Amino acid sequence: MQRVDGRKHNELRKINITRNYIYHAEGSVLIEFGNTKVICTASVDDKVPPFRKGTGEGWVTAEYSMLPRATQVRNVRDINKLKLNGRAYEIQRLIGRSLRSVVDFKSLGERSIIIDCDVIQADGGTRTASITGGFIALMDACSYLLDKNIITEMPIKNFVAAVSVGIVHENKLLDLCYEEDANATVDMNVVMTDSGQLIELQATGELSPFSRDDLNQLLNMAEKGISELISIQKNILLKG
Amino acid sequence: MQRVDGRKHNELRKINITRNYIYHAEGSVLIEFGNTKVICTASVDDKVPPFRKGTGEGWVTAEYSMLPRATQVRNVRDINKLKLNGRAYEIQRLIGRSLRSVVDFKSLGERSIIIDCDVIQADGGTRTASITGGFIALMDACSYLLDKNIITEMPIKNFVAAVSVGIVHENKLLDLCYEEDANATVDMNVVMTDSGQLIELQATGELSPFSRDDLNQLLNMAEKGISELISIQKNILLKG
Amino acid sequence: MQRVDGRKHNELRKINITRNYIYHAEGSVLIEFGNTKVICTASVDDKVPPFRKGTGEGWVTAEYSMLPRATQVRNVRDINKLKLNGRAYEIQRLIGRSLRSVVDFKSLGERSIIIDCDVIQADGGTRTASITGGFIALMDACSYLLDKNIITEMPIKNFVAAVSVGIVHENKLLDLCYEEDANATVDMNVVMTDSGQLIELQATGELSPFSRDDLNQLLNMAEKGISELISIQKNILLKG
Amino acid sequence: MQRVDGRKHNELRKINITRNYIYHAEGSVLIEFGNTKVICTASVDDKVPPFRKGTGEGWVTAEYSMLPRATQVRNVRDINKLKLNGRAYEIQRLIGRSLRSVVDFKSLGERSIIIDCDVIQADGGTRTASITGGFIALMDACSYLLDKNIITEMPIKNFVAAVSVGIVHENKLLDLCYEEDANATVDMNVVMTDSGQLIELQATGELSPFSRDDLNQLLNMAEKGISELISIQKNILLKG
Amino acid sequence: MQRVDGRKHNELRKINITRNYIYHAEGSVLIEFGNTKVICTASVDDKVPPFRKGTGEGWVTAEYSMLPRATQVRNVRDINKLKLNGRAYEIQRLIGRSLRSVVDFKSLGERSIIIDCDVIQADGGTRTASITGGFIALMDACSYLLDKNIITEMPIKNFVAAVSVGIVHENKLLDLCYEEDANATVDMNVVMTDSGQLIELQATGELSPFSRDDLNQLLNMAEKGISELISIQKNILLKG
Amino acid sequence: MQRVDGRKHNELRKINITRNYIYHAEGSVLIEFGNTKVICTASVDDKVPPFRKGTGEGWVTAEYSMLPRATQVRNVRDINKLKLNGRAYEIQRLIGRSLRSVVDFKSLGERSIIIDCDVIQADGGTRTASITGGFIALMDACSYLLDKNIITEMPIKNFVAAVSVGIVHENKLLDLCYEEDANATVDMNVVMTDSGQLIELQATGELSPFSRDDLNQLLNMAEKGISELISIQKNILLKG
Repeated sequence: MQRVDGRKHNELRKINITRNYIYHAEGSVLIEFGNTKVICTASVDDKVPPFRKGTGEGWVTAEYSMLPRATQVRNVRDINKLKLNGRAYEIQRLIGRSLRSVVDFKSLGERSIIIDCDVIQADGGTRTASITGGFIALMDACSYLLDKNIITEMPIKNFVAAVSVGIVHENKLLDLCYEEDANATVDMNVVMTDSGQLIELQATGELSPFSRDDLNQLLNMAEKGISELISIQKNILLKG
Repeated sequence: MQRVDGRKHNELRKINITRNYIYHAEGSVLIEFGNTKVICTASVDDKVPPFRKGTGEGWVTAEYSMLPRATQVRNVRDINKLKLNGRAYEIQRLIGRSLRSVVDFKSLGERSIIIDCDVIQADGGTRTASITGGFIALMDACSYLLDKNIITEMPIKNFVAAVSVGIVHENKLLDLCYEEDANATVDMNVVMTDSGQLIELQATGELSPFSRDDLNQLLNMAEKGISELISIQKNILLKG
Repeated sequence: MQRVDGRKHNELRKINITRNYIYHAEGSVLIEFGNTKVICTASVDDKVPPFRKGTGEGWVTAEYSMLPRATQVRNVRDINKLKLNGRAYEIQRLIGRSLRSVVDFKSLGERSIIIDCDVIQADGGTRTASITGGFIALMDACSYLLDKNIITEMPIKNFVAAVSVGIVHENKLLDLCYEEDANATVDMNVVMTDSGQLIELQATGELSPFSRDDLNQLLNMAEKGISELISIQKNILLKG
Repeated sequence: MQRVDGRKHNELRKINITRNYIYHAEGSVLIEFGNTKVICTASVDDKVPPFRKGTGEGWVTAEYSMLPRATQVRNVRDINKLKLNGRAYEIQRLIGRSLRSVVDFKSLGERSIIIDCDVIQADGGTRTASITGGFIALMDACSYLLDKNIITEMPIKNFVAAVSVGIVHENKLLDLCYEEDANATVDMNVVMTDSGQLIELQATGELSPFSRDDLNQLLNMAEKGISELISIQKNILLKG
Repeated sequence: MQRVDGRKHNELRKINITRNYIYHAEGSVLIEFGNTKVICTASVDDKVPPFRKGTGEGWVTAEYSMLPRATQVRNVRDINKLKLNGRAYEIQRLIGRSLRSVVDFKSLGERSIIIDCDVIQADGGTRTASITGGFIALMDACSYLLDKNIITEMPIKNFVAAVSVGIVHENKLLDLCYEEDANATVDMNVVMTDSGQLIELQATGELSPFSRDDLNQLLNMAEKGISELISIQKNILLKG
Repeated sequence: MQRVDGRKHNELRKINITRNYIYHAEGSVLIEFGNTKVICTASVDDKVPPFRKGTGEGWVTAEYSMLPRATQVRNVRDINKLKLNGRAYEIQRLIGRSLRSVVDFKSLGERSIIIDCDVIQADGGTRTASITGGFIALMDACSYLLDKNIITEMPIKNFVAAVSVGIVHENKLLDLCYEEDANATVDMNVVMTDSGQLIELQATGELSPFSRDDLNQLLNMAEKGISELISIQKNILLKG
């Protein structure tokens, strides 16, 4: 099977990361996974949630949203429906957990970093782009805190990146674009560290159940993709 | 390590399913996983969502909520915060996807079944109890439609059940109670069919990344638990 | 006239009260008035409303809600309409006033008790069941505070219970079930103490005005019913 | 005991009704019970609620609100809290039921009349002023429909008015002003027709239970007040 | 062209200001611009917004709303739509800015004055009536603070009033009523002080662009009207 | 006085317009006024608001929002406050009116075009950039409709652009950046067509009233700026 954009089954889309994209934010990137474009900003806040108060430890949280015309059909803004949609809740909770997994909250100290992921153009994989780009924004915000001597130690313990894999017309594919995603019978999002450990795994076979063997093959493919994404992250950060 | 309630590592809690618990509903159960108690009702509705209109196919959706004092500390009701909390959104989307995976929507015809899962007492595993109990309520609602000759064929293709597994103090455990869940470094919810296929897999290692090997051992344990839950479901339904 | 369930005009439905129904709560019951089933929990909270702060006196408040399928036709959840419905507001204010009327707030001290009344199956009389059952939950929460030496004196001064009466096809009936309630031209809810005093009286003749004489006959019937309900409450509490 | 404004125990405050107060509305009054001032408008709407559609019968509903500075301390507007307060819900449901009780919905035909009661200055008794004034607005809206030949028969079957009574420092008083109301141990709102029948009775003894004898004496007093209010209504309407 | 109500092109409607209209408020008026009637109250509040805390300076803010039947067609209340409508937001921000422009916040001290403008009958020009009447309420609230020795100096530096002007069927008109406003191609609201300076100018030619020359002629007309309104304000305040 | 960024008093910031920025939308630009960056998309919708139904005429409306970190201090998202902020309402109404003023709704036919203006980086002048950029997006959406033969005539009658002017430390300045805006005593937004006519004029002197002479000088400066902006628009569109 030929993929819609001519890629190989286990090939990522073109990844582009523009650092310092929003000059107000302590960390910010425009990340592109092919046609998917997400602005990720990291904002440092002196406050922590109630359960952290007085512990000396910080917190990292995420918010995810789409511009109304990030998609083929325009979406009514959440505020006009007075509801954050369920999908956005699910995704921002995933982003938050993924990024927190690599943070040493003692080193961060009693402050929060909020990662805002705003999709300006969507073509599949917005949550994995958000995690991968959000990580760079988070790193840059931590470097900012180090540079200003607000903290004394880099609180990020590992690199983290995410990618989607899925089964489309019985083919296992890496980094699905929207058209592929819409035809996938099995859809899986994988978050891993640079030490090859799993952070999050969300697999769904709503349209067709899948076997343990399928799972393993998809995980192999995801490992390859994430390892490439982490190389890109490392290159970008090295350029400083 | 001794589990807090004396169970073996791969042992389910006592499972109890009371059918026809709410006499208004087309299907309803009170399901208990130990101290966790959830009322699941299945309501037949003549309407379908816009994307199903005119297709001749039906839909299954789920809603999940907790009574304010289902937990140790009382929760403010969503309506008093004017927000459905993110956790509930995430869970009800999971329940909906899981149950839809075993439904033949052509046989169901252009109607909806709404599965309401209301937790009256929570002690860990409320989402897996909701899926396992929601399946029985769904079956009973479909039997009701068959009995009334509204449909001519049972639209349920497979049994489906769910269980949690996790790593607590480096022990891999099946069906975590709240105290275990609060101490888990890795937490995983698994949904499978009676043919041993995976439907959903949500694993999170926010507090500690995990290896592919950990994943496989946890999946083995989940398979055992789900197979026992499906036996219980089958016995209950046989009793008619 | 024969009543739909064969009862005498001045006969209560079968009343069932299961104490300690939710193990997290300081007080809790499942109360059944025939097919009407309500879970009432009493939660102790260290905070008081602003108008009580610094007074040394406590507060009791109530919340009332129905599960979506507690009724013949499924109700959309309040949170999905972003509105607590007017009927629920009216009922929870009634429950709160009724229970507060028998509390000595000095003895309770500067803390709140929140009575949650969640209807899991509705067949008429949910508000009177909520008051009657909420009273037991309130008593149990106060006993808990006494046992823990948090307070030194039982703050409950009287027993309180409630019942509905109404005129259906010109018959005066006690404790209306849903079908009777739907056909009532006059509908009245009465709350009284064990000393035979009135706490609340809400009578409505929207479909047919009523005379002072009707009112007196209905009150006689309600007095009888409430006196029986208070006997049941006393027996339950004696069993400890 | 001397009343704060020098009235006799069973004396109404000065009642003032200005008809046609808002020139856009089909019916409208400014009603004053002493310092309590309420604008009541009646708006004819071609639509009916879903449960009336196709029945040929109409509907009457009410909404109640206060201007922010109708009270001694300014109230935050509901819209800024995103919640209609429970008290307003309770009151507008009472006004709606009271006015519907005297309407022949067949004669009204399949249309709605909405009674808006907006309190511009509050000094106790706002709900009873709303019912008493809302009735005149409703009558005028019906006369408008008759005059325009939209309906052929006056759909109002009886006059209806309302008054508060209560026990203050052990004195039974008619038509309580705010200061009296704030000190009442028993508070009761009574709605009656010109044929001396009861429509609604809401009595609350939150601060002190009351006897059947107290109830009867308060009802006698209310009957007297309502009969005077209905005389005033009749005079106003005669003047055309 | 004859105006609909027979006025000259540059003639105001009959202006009526009733002071001390709501006896609870520190300042209050009923202001009438012809058939347009607005209740303006000024409420003193000890709190200030966060950006004023600790500065020793006060704040003035405004809220604007319409009763449902202030207009020809009844408006659904904001609370029932859970949204303050955009028009109200725009107007209340204009009123707030206009009144703040003449206040010396040092003299006012660290407290707020909230101006509530509630339109009870609308016939065009509600925002200009709100500013003109709100100013009197504000003055009276400041006099109240002076009289009570809460402040020592009148914090109002200038008089301020507002009027609408517009182009209707190519005629430039002062103080448009609703029917004129609905036919205006250019619509302009002007706020000025008694020293002839401009505070706010909002001109819109949505239906037809306009020239600099049109603008100047309309401003001349507005100046005349505002000067007359300020005379009326001064007379009213002199009468004490 | 030297401007903060070295510009002359009557000099625009560097203007950059990137067309076809979001590939899903019928029209879209990224517009930059110096550091201010706004994404404007134009979405064609088959529906029209109720007041247009059956008229054969179309509608243009606008929505305006900021990403949370578009500003120096992060803003809480509207959806998390459940309120669209008043400033956004005011701005989106201005954008809508401005763009509608140059549309021939007969030629557009009974369809809507929604202009979404999402500020990704704010440095003053976001509303004027939104109007100026929104116009290009609107033009491109209309060209799309022409190209697809959905309409037969270009419905845009004139070019329209907007700019801010203001008085800062007694200097009259064109196109204020944030730092200038924060220090302005008079602030004015002007919208004009390519034929030199005014569409909208919003001037506010909250901190210091201004004279007719000030107004005229500011308008002269705005005219110059808008004429340059319209030249840029024309060049961009010529490049096609």
